Amino acid sequence: MYWLIHKILKLNWAMIGRIIGFVLKVEACLLVFPLIVNYLYGESIGFAYIVTIGLCFGIGSLLSLTDKKKNIIFSRDGLVAVGLAWIIMSALGALPFFISQEIPNYIDCLFETISGFTTTGSSILNDVEALSHANIFWRSLTHWIGGMGILVFVLAVASGSNERMMHVMRAESPGPTIGKLVPRMKQSAAILYNIYLFLTIACVIFLCLGGMPLFDSLCHAFGTAGTGGFGIKNTSVAYYDSAYIDAVITIFMILFGINFNVYYFILIRDFKAAFKNEEFKAYIGIIIACIVMIGINIYPLYGNVADVLRYSSFQVGSIITTTGYSTANFDLWPSFSKMILLLLMVLGASAGSTGGGIKVSRFLIIVKKVKLDIQRLIHPQKVNAITMDGKLVDEEVVTQITSYFCCFMLIMATCLLLVSLDNLDMETTISAVMSCIGNIGPGFSLCGPLANFDCFSYFSKLVLSAAMLIGRLEIYPILIFMFPVIRLPEAIKKPKRRD
Amino acid sequence: MYWLIHKILKLNWAMIGRIIGFVLKVEACLLVFPLIVNYLYGESIGFAYIVTIGLCFGIGSLLSLTDKKKNIIFSRDGLVAVGLAWIIMSALGALPFFISQEIPNYIDCLFETISGFTTTGSSILNDVEALSHANIFWRSLTHWIGGMGILVFVLAVASGSNERMMHVMRAESPGPTIGKLVPRMKQSAAILYNIYLFLTIACVIFLCLGGMPLFDSLCHAFGTAGTGGFGIKNTSVAYYDSAYIDAVITIFMILFGINFNVYYFILIRDFKAAFKNEEFKAYIGIIIACIVMIGINIYPLYGNVADVLRYSSFQVGSIITTTGYSTANFDLWPSFSKMILLLLMVLGASAGSTGGGIKVSRFLIIVKKVKLDIQRLIHPQKVNAITMDGKLVDEEVVTQITSYFCCFMLIMATCLLLVSLDNLDMETTISAVMSCIGNIGPGFSLCGPLANFDCFSYFSKLVLSAAMLIGRLEIYPILIFMFPVIRLPEAIKKPKRRD
Repeated sequence: MYWLIHKILKLNWAMIGRIIGFVLKVEACLLVFPLIVNYLYGESIGFAYIVTIGLCFGIGSLLSLTDKKKNIIFSRDGLVAVGLAWIIMSALGALPFFISQEIPNYIDCLFETISGFTTTGSSILNDVEALSHANIFWRSLTHWIGGMGILVFVLAVASGSNERMMHVMRAESPGPTIGKLVPRMKQSAAILYNIYLFLTIACVIFLCLGGMPLFDSLCHAFGTAGTGGFGIKNTSVAYYDSAYIDAVITIFMILFGINFNVYYFILIRDFKAAFKNEEFKAYIGIIIACIVMIGINIYPLYGNVADVLRYSSFQVGSIITTTGYSTANFDLWPSFSKMILLLLMVLGASAGSTGGGIKVSRFLIIVKKVKLDIQRLIHPQKVNAITMDGKLVDEEVVTQITSYFCCFMLIMATCLLLVSLDNLDMETTISAVMSCIGNIGPGFSLCGPLANFDCFSYFSKLVLSAAMLIGRLEIYPILIFMFPVIRLPEAIKKPKRRD
Repeated sequence: MYWLIHKILKLNWAMIGRIIGFVLKVEACLLVFPLIVNYLYGESIGFAYIVTIGLCFGIGSLLSLTDKKKNIIFSRDGLVAVGLAWIIMSALGALPFFISQEIPNYIDCLFETISGFTTTGSSILNDVEALSHANIFWRSLTHWIGGMGILVFVLAVASGSNERMMHVMRAESPGPTIGKLVPRMKQSAAILYNIYLFLTIACVIFLCLGGMPLFDSLCHAFGTAGTGGFGIKNTSVAYYDSAYIDAVITIFMILFGINFNVYYFILIRDFKAAFKNEEFKAYIGIIIACIVMIGINIYPLYGNVADVLRYSSFQVGSIITTTGYSTANFDLWPSFSKMILLLLMVLGASAGSTGGGIKVSRFLIIVKKVKLDIQRLIHPQKVNAITMDGKLVDEEVVTQITSYFCCFMLIMATCLLLVSLDNLDMETTISAVMSCIGNIGPGFSLCGPLANFDCFSYFSKLVLSAAMLIGRLEIYPILIFMFPVIRLPEAIKKPKRRD
């Protein structure tokens, strides 16, 4: 215990404070948007936003005042900064709901905000439509902010010292492969951010073309881009009952679940690299396979191929990308379809996308490892190694991924035990935990697509909030093991400007 | 694909045939016991056993005729022999139920027999008490035979060449640590076998002292020793409604779930080594913790400490050791208790015991690995290693265990998908699969302690049978990775007699 406290005291708190301070100032700026929405719709909860903006800016400014000379940052400082930033950001981001008293209990507000920033999309609201426009807008915007990770955003617009931020970036960006697009950190963040912005705008335009009001289109695009899935209607996307809108959202959800490296390769016109990407191929393959399997399974419910395709592709896209929108009450689907969706919740989307879960690339490596083990059994002398995209995967990385998976399962087991104290049925408990760790949104049964998470106790809501954060930050302290390099050279001094 | 076929043809089929032949001859001898029971009770299904004995002996003798000069055995030959032996043994062992037509469908007979030999204890019988005594006896005896692994039995009584059988032993004995008791294989098998026999007899005596009829005591002792759990009454052990009998069975179940190495240390009076065994301590610790947690959780149901202790300790003992007897309808317990039992199903008993599941020692190593990873995060320069019982655990072994766990989960996911095709509720599907892979017995809901597995389709019964075999043989082809040594030196020639 002693050495743990010792280590905590030895962290670079000045730097951590400055990072969090910056994040809060950015949050203050972003909170201006719902404030504008409030006045546009002539609503009366402006004070809630003004107070929150004041708090964010005030605390943010105070934290920025720390000693600027302490520039040495260790990987653990970066991890602590990221974890704390998400928690503080959520704690403050929950205030508008609480101050406006549209969600009366602060724990509920916190659950909703963490669910937003982690792009989970689980809600405790029985009647979403009762919220004011400003709160609905802020709620959806949290998805968009969380989606790409506010710290990638920070990186993109912030300080000129790139390498200093390296570790923060590494702890933040989803999945094991991102951040290697181009050697320079700031540049790569900018590229990711532009792709994200471009796709979001495209999504808004396509939704508007389908006759969806601009406000609704923006909110849905935020939820789609961040793979979040907060609906703004009580029946989620089913409200619009439009095959066109379903199709647009399906396609964009799937697009946002693709590894952003693929877009980068397309941008630099290296189409060969883009379409040879193993994770991309596996991701598309799994989606098609699941759509077909669920389609056959639910055919008797709908009776025609068009409807079956529409609902199965939407739901598969929604769950594998960990978005969580719904157009059908999939809780009524046959067990086989539900089991596929449950397993997709654990799987998640591609690494380097906005989606959550274990990630397709990790899953691929785990499958390859198991396959290799079986091959070695029959042919022991043959030294086979695991490759991804034609490149050798380091043994250590493979070990870390299997270890990550074990850790994921241990955390899931712990959450299952804690949430089961609520004495709800097993289907609700299991699906709620998987849904929260995987950052999906809805579960089955009592927390199914037409229900919500209000059935849980406040204790369980806190446990599930923690699960969402752990899932989003890739078990956060564990994530570092995806990058074995970090373990060796520890101190990275602020480099001299080379440009 | 080509090299796979090539490898299959290159296996030492002469040796594999002889091993299986020997196993079948042993099975023929064991089938004499239910035949005797048949005559003692004046029942009329003797022909079913006579036919089966004839078949086992005939096929066994034919298989034993193969070329005795082919003595070189590779690890993969051993693994193939073990896998095939269990399948063929079960296929023939199912015949008495089928020929006597007390279980009309052969797939049901096969399910019941595999469930017996794998010491699972899941049953498809709606009315166990309708079976004749001979069939009940044989059904329980399969647990006892399977319990220690028929091949350990074979080893103990069979051929003088020890090292030749090494690989078979390794593939067979449950968990990663057994077989290292004493250097000589035959001797160690004899020790294990004697401990097993001694504990079984003790169990029979204690049950008889509680007023249980001899026949019932034998059957229950077989089920307890093998950690199987076939009840011989429709309400399992609850039928006897005796606190004494519950206590005896609880204690013996827990005893049979202990790593047999501990008994060996006690035998040689090395008590220090016995009680310092980390797995033993963790196993006892987990049992106590679960009894307390479940006890508090179910207290309102029973209202007095004595009953609560009686039912919670019995059920915890029954599930963690993967036996599966029941005295209470734990399906009606609160979700928290059920979740604990569900997680214990995956955990399983100690390595080197007759229990199934992931095993406590593997779980310990996984937890230590995760802990180490977190420590390294905070203190990266410190090179920590994983130790068990004060000895360093090889990195490779740790990797193999995490990889084993991943494989276990992948197989579980596959089984979940296949069984969910039956469209039963999720609780039934999930608990049935976990129960079968972990070799427990009952699940929840439709396959709960007072129900049975007859609710599943024949397809699912076959899938679950495969799951039981995979679980029992520790994913059998995967097991070899628990013993990295095997991978390198391939050919082990029959050694010259040294004594």
